[in-house]
Amino acid sequence: MITVYGYSVSGNCHKLRLLLEQLGREYRWVEIDSSKGESRTPQYLAKNANGRVPIIELDDGRVLAESNAILCWLADGTACLPSDGWQKAQALSWMFFEQYSHEPYVAVARFIRGWTPADSPRRTAELPRCLERGHQALAVMEKHLAGNAWFTGPDYGIADIALFAYTDVAHHGGFDLASYPALRDWLERVRATPGFVAMPDPAPENAALLAI
Amino acid sequence: MITVYGYSVSGNCHKLRLLLEQLGREYRWVEIDSSKGESRTPQYLAKNANGRVPIIELDDGRVLAESNAILCWLADGTACLPSDGWQKAQALSWMFFEQYSHEPYVAVARFIRGWTPADSPRRTAELPRCLERGHQALAVMEKHLAGNAWFTGPDYGIADIALFAYTDVAHHGGFDLASYPALRDWLERVRATPGFVAMPDPAPENAALLAI
Repeated sequence: MITVYGYSVSGNCHKLRLLLEQLGREYRWVEIDSSKGESRTPQYLAKNANGRVPIIELDDGRVLAESNAILCWLADGTACLPSDGWQKAQALSWMFFEQYSHEPYVAVARFIRGWTPADSPRRTAELPRCLERGHQALAVMEKHLAGNAWFTGPDYGIADIALFAYTDVAHHGGFDLASYPALRDWLERVRATPGFVAMPDPAPENAALLAI
Repeated sequence: MITVYGYSVSGNCHKLRLLLEQLGREYRWVEIDSSKGESRTPQYLAKNANGRVPIIELDDGRVLAESNAILCWLADGTACLPSDGWQKAQALSWMFFEQYSHEPYVAVARFIRGWTPADSPRRTAELPRCLERGHQALAVMEKHLAGNAWFTGPDYGIADIALFAYTDVAHHGGFDLASYPALRDWLERVRATPGFVAMPDPAPENAALLAI
């Protein structure tokens, strides 16, 4: 069986739960609260020297890191990843876009607002740039979705899952999605896919910070 | 034939040149100096709404963006990407590591030092964090290379190419590799692979800034 080490309210981690549930795969989930340093313990660093969640571990102890690489491995051979080489490359392209041009702004804005102290200097130093760059990424998505139902080919798949995770909670970071109608329709379509599970709500301490 | 749109002294772009040369593939190269805004023209944005280099374009006009997704597509079915699913996932994992934990620090330090004015506020505001995070990434690589010749399985491949591109010019960003002996040996092994081509030197104006 697969064991996921992840922080349930992290979008990167929730990607795996969403795909595993939708594929009907059995898995164990070991909660690692990376916001409290649990991904930096010697035990965890022995599994992933980069100290990040999520990872998966197989029964024989082999480990795979990086959420989108894990999505690819889990989805290989299923309807969630096209078998056609060019379509597969397009899925990968959107997943690299997500990690380079989207997550560092959309997810980091959420983290700063909900997981750093109310008086954190990061709120003034970093949030404006996160919002600016995050909106650039959302605009790229909107442009694609104006002419396409999904991010790769005719069907829902792991590029959608990768991009959905933090876009669905973008409001936590202060993003208003009012000017992205195609994006909002796509979020609805993802929520309506069979076996969909939403990310759990943040803990009360984080919810209180997000409400500031 | 494949057309690459790229900036020759960008590591992300050089990855493609290195792989294409090593695979013996024919290609056209269209130089796009992204540092002078050439990836933000209406013509270029029509090909890649995200405004980044590199992209590849096929003869029928189809476009693929994101350097590491392009590496995967080009290498599929060759010795540069393992056919085994788990090994392929490990290659992807290192490529996502490169784009998330390495490039935003190792490459950005180089960009700030060589492609922003000598009095740029980014030199004091951003360089220290780039160096700190970049060294964390180099340490993760060193740990892997202490026990492995290459980044995926027993052979050289696209995970090595992805990580080599900016590591080989890390000194431009102010990184001293003296304390990474396994990393330096690996750089030498990559430089000795058949068909290896080095990235061209930066233009004189950038070289002058790098020398400050």
